[in-house]
Amino acid sequence: MLKLFYAPNTCALASHIALEEAGADYETARIDFRANDQRKPEYLAINPKGRVPALVTDRGILTETPAILAFVAQSFPKSRLASLDDAFAFARIQAFNSYLCSTVHVAHAHRLRGYRWADDEAAFAAMKKKVPQSVGECFDLIEREMFVGPWVMGETYTISDPYLFTLAQWLEGDGVDIARFPKVRDHRHRMAERPAVKAALAAELG
Amino acid sequence: MLKLFYAPNTCALASHIALEEAGADYETARIDFRANDQRKPEYLAINPKGRVPALVTDRGILTETPAILAFVAQSFPKSRLASLDDAFAFARIQAFNSYLCSTVHVAHAHRLRGYRWADDEAAFAAMKKKVPQSVGECFDLIEREMFVGPWVMGETYTISDPYLFTLAQWLEGDGVDIARFPKVRDHRHRMAERPAVKAALAAELG
Repeated sequence: MLKLFYAPNTCALASHIALEEAGADYETARIDFRANDQRKPEYLAINPKGRVPALVTDRGILTETPAILAFVAQSFPKSRLASLDDAFAFARIQAFNSYLCSTVHVAHAHRLRGYRWADDEAAFAAMKKKVPQSVGECFDLIEREMFVGPWVMGETYTISDPYLFTLAQWLEGDGVDIARFPKVRDHRHRMAERPAVKAALAAELG
Repeated sequence: MLKLFYAPNTCALASHIALEEAGADYETARIDFRANDQRKPEYLAINPKGRVPALVTDRGILTETPAILAFVAQSFPKSRLASLDDAFAFARIQAFNSYLCSTVHVAHAHRLRGYRWADDEAAFAAMKKKVPQSVGECFDLIEREMFVGPWVMGETYTISDPYLFTLAQWLEGDGVDIARFPKVRDHRHRMAERPAVKAALAAELG
């Protein structure tokens, strides 16, 4: 059986929702970031990066949200969570997800994880200060250039949808007004109505 | 015909090598970062992010290295650049490439692109100072936990190889001694002997 290691309010939510959407048989294990569980030897044996998500499969352990999302889509083809027979359409999904992990999530991480990239408090404060601008610019681009609607890729719901939804959860905390992005805001509402999203959120936050 | 927009000494090299390995019919267009070409309207019409790589296809434009690499592998299946019939093996490749784009490349970018995440010179200096450590830690993890050998994924050359090779080019500039990572060092030598790598480097730097 699949087992997802997650922490609440992290990007692991995207994989959690995707497993729900796929109707996968899976269990979850919660990592407590406040207790620094992600840095303990037991968890580092699962994911040496000390991060979530990690997905334990019968073949081995997978990490990195875009990889896990594509794995879920390919492993449960009937759920139609990605275009599996069209390399270009699949690449568009991957490109969107790659932008989320390498640019949007990274911009967000400068609010609380500045210690990854500097060692002094003044630099942490300088990074934190720019987050509303840098995250806001990312969502401007998503709103203007990338989001097709009603789902990220257009008429068809894909693995890009739970990932966008997950990162859009962080806008208020990052000091960005979601009202600037009507398409992303409506998408968040649309997502919140899906049973898979409700189930994943209830499991993580309930 | 495919057309790759690239700039020398950027991560676009990975896609360039993959196109060569695939035997693709493609052309290239060079973007001059010193002339700020990537911010000019002509290029922003191709990639609104103002970055490279961008791959023009007959279906539309693709961006983001992991997405382009997977697209090349799927579009040229005879070149066997990824495991296309094994979702887990494919996900391992994607996970490695996702780590490169979202963590390794990002650590490196703090040396010269601090303006993405802060606005003052002191913060840029603080970020730059930590790059040898943060990039070094990434390659420690690759060397110790991820690299199988002789290629990244083991016996079979995949799209993870040109990507690792590309980012390993930056170690010296980032103040990291590649001798700390014998597997990565040997991989770089092994890669440099491949005709596809020689052809891509000659085209970009020649």
